[in-house]
Amino acid sequence: MSDARASPEAFLQMGREILAKQPFSGLLGAELTALSPGQVELQLPLRDELKQQHGFAHGGVVSYLADNALTYAGGTAMQVPVVTSEFKINYVRPALGQRLVARARAEATGKAQSVARCEVYAVTDGVEKLCALAQGTIVRLGEGG
Amino acid sequence: MSDARASPEAFLQMGREILAKQPFSGLLGAELTALSPGQVELQLPLRDELKQQHGFAHGGVVSYLADNALTYAGGTAMQVPVVTSEFKINYVRPALGQRLVARARAEATGKAQSVARCEVYAVTDGVEKLCALAQGTIVRLGEGG
Amino acid sequence: MSDARASPEAFLQMGREILAKQPFSGLLGAELTALSPGQVELQLPLRDELKQQHGFAHGGVVSYLADNALTYAGGTAMQVPVVTSEFKINYVRPALGQRLVARARAEATGKAQSVARCEVYAVTDGVEKLCALAQGTIVRLGEGG
Amino acid sequence: MSDARASPEAFLQMGREILAKQPFSGLLGAELTALSPGQVELQLPLRDELKQQHGFAHGGVVSYLADNALTYAGGTAMQVPVVTSEFKINYVRPALGQRLVARARAEATGKAQSVARCEVYAVTDGVEKLCALAQGTIVRLGEGG
Repeated sequence: MSDARASPEAFLQMGREILAKQPFSGLLGAELTALSPGQVELQLPLRDELKQQHGFAHGGVVSYLADNALTYAGGTAMQVPVVTSEFKINYVRPALGQRLVARARAEATGKAQSVARCEVYAVTDGVEKLCALAQGTIVRLGEGG
Repeated sequence: MSDARASPEAFLQMGREILAKQPFSGLLGAELTALSPGQVELQLPLRDELKQQHGFAHGGVVSYLADNALTYAGGTAMQVPVVTSEFKINYVRPALGQRLVARARAEATGKAQSVARCEVYAVTDGVEKLCALAQGTIVRLGEGG
Repeated sequence: MSDARASPEAFLQMGREILAKQPFSGLLGAELTALSPGQVELQLPLRDELKQQHGFAHGGVVSYLADNALTYAGGTAMQVPVVTSEFKINYVRPALGQRLVARARAEATGKAQSVARCEVYAVTDGVEKLCALAQGTIVRLGEGG
Repeated sequence: MSDARASPEAFLQMGREILAKQPFSGLLGAELTALSPGQVELQLPLRDELKQQHGFAHGGVVSYLADNALTYAGGTAMQVPVVTSEFKINYVRPALGQRLVARARAEATGKAQSVARCEVYAVTDGVEKLCALAQGTIVRLGEGG
């Protein structure tokens, strides 16, 4: 990810083009709703295919969204191609609702890595309920091994 | 999950029925290939839809598989309905290959929780390469909040 | 920890009495500088004994402070005796300075657990620099196993 | 840490010299009891000063030992000066006993980082009980920021 001097609209558009190149994000239906250097909002409408046997969104869906949001936050903070090196997630409430919203931000960014945090909310009729908190490390592509 | 006295075949069958009830696991195509109390092997054939823009499996796919494997390991160790409360994952290599294999086991199990570990391998022509390590906490359903 | 109806001064005093009962906190020299339900600030003057071979505070010192701050945040949010069940920490900068300050807060609290976050700063001549970020789960005493 | 061609005795001795240069490890009383490239055993006799208000070793003591063991495992695997970048720890049992023993090993090592795992046991009359599991990332010194 590059060019922090881009206009806000162009920056968001750049982020959407990256998302469009991720077939898995397309399969799940993720939408990039806000992006600026070091900050991101990703949303995911919840449909039955994304659920597990108890009726709420599968943990893997929530962790996908957190992982991707962390990567955007760290990548736009570092302005280089990145991958998520590691993260941890705490699920604090079943992800029940019409959509998920993940917001992440880079908290500490250096040359080689960025540490970011993310919250995931389940939204029902406009009411957001916190359902997961994540924290992870984003590194330059190729630095992981 | 219940009844550790079931035959190995019946136990695996029980686990497969649970997986079949998870629409998200069906969407991704996960397969339960081994299950005994506290131990599990899950596999996931990699198709283009599960990839990201660099050509390897999306981190969210790898973390889904780890999360689900941890839940099976902890749930079959505790023999009660469970959810994953939290986990952390380290990606150590791009997940390139024909399929992913996740193996998890419960390392410490009590009445209220089980701590489990998981390794995820990418498999190409029968050769397994470690691509992620995870560790997490599985708790009785309803204990999380 | 108990009695959220206590005056702010009495609440802080209660917290200091708990800290005084932890011999390890005494050995390190931790000071409780602020406490309210779900929020805490712990400080630790840095002396040579707390350092490692590169001259900055040992990671174990930073993680001790984060762990203890998370426990206070979760314990005062839940108002029951608690222990830290798990946490993760990212070190983002060498902990160089005259003292460490850890601030933690409970982010999601239920009957059985609280998920809290913490930042640790190294302070030199009044200037704070972020050196670590932590996130963890606090549970009722006796629930861990 | 360097020179994997050293004799096992010289390698262990090298590790002990590093430990001796960590004032905090001296304050706590840690002992390096085994070391080879990518593998380590650290021990810590438990005295009252290392405990908390419930009578068992403070979580910060356990996390110190895990953190240090992870660093040794990753550092001896990479053979360069390193620091722990991040780790997570699950406490699974109160650390009650005469001493703690931590064993760690590098699980995946590349040029820029090593991912290691650690188990911490509490020992009473020669009987070891698992009390914590950790997993973390060790990076070249100077790569963290």
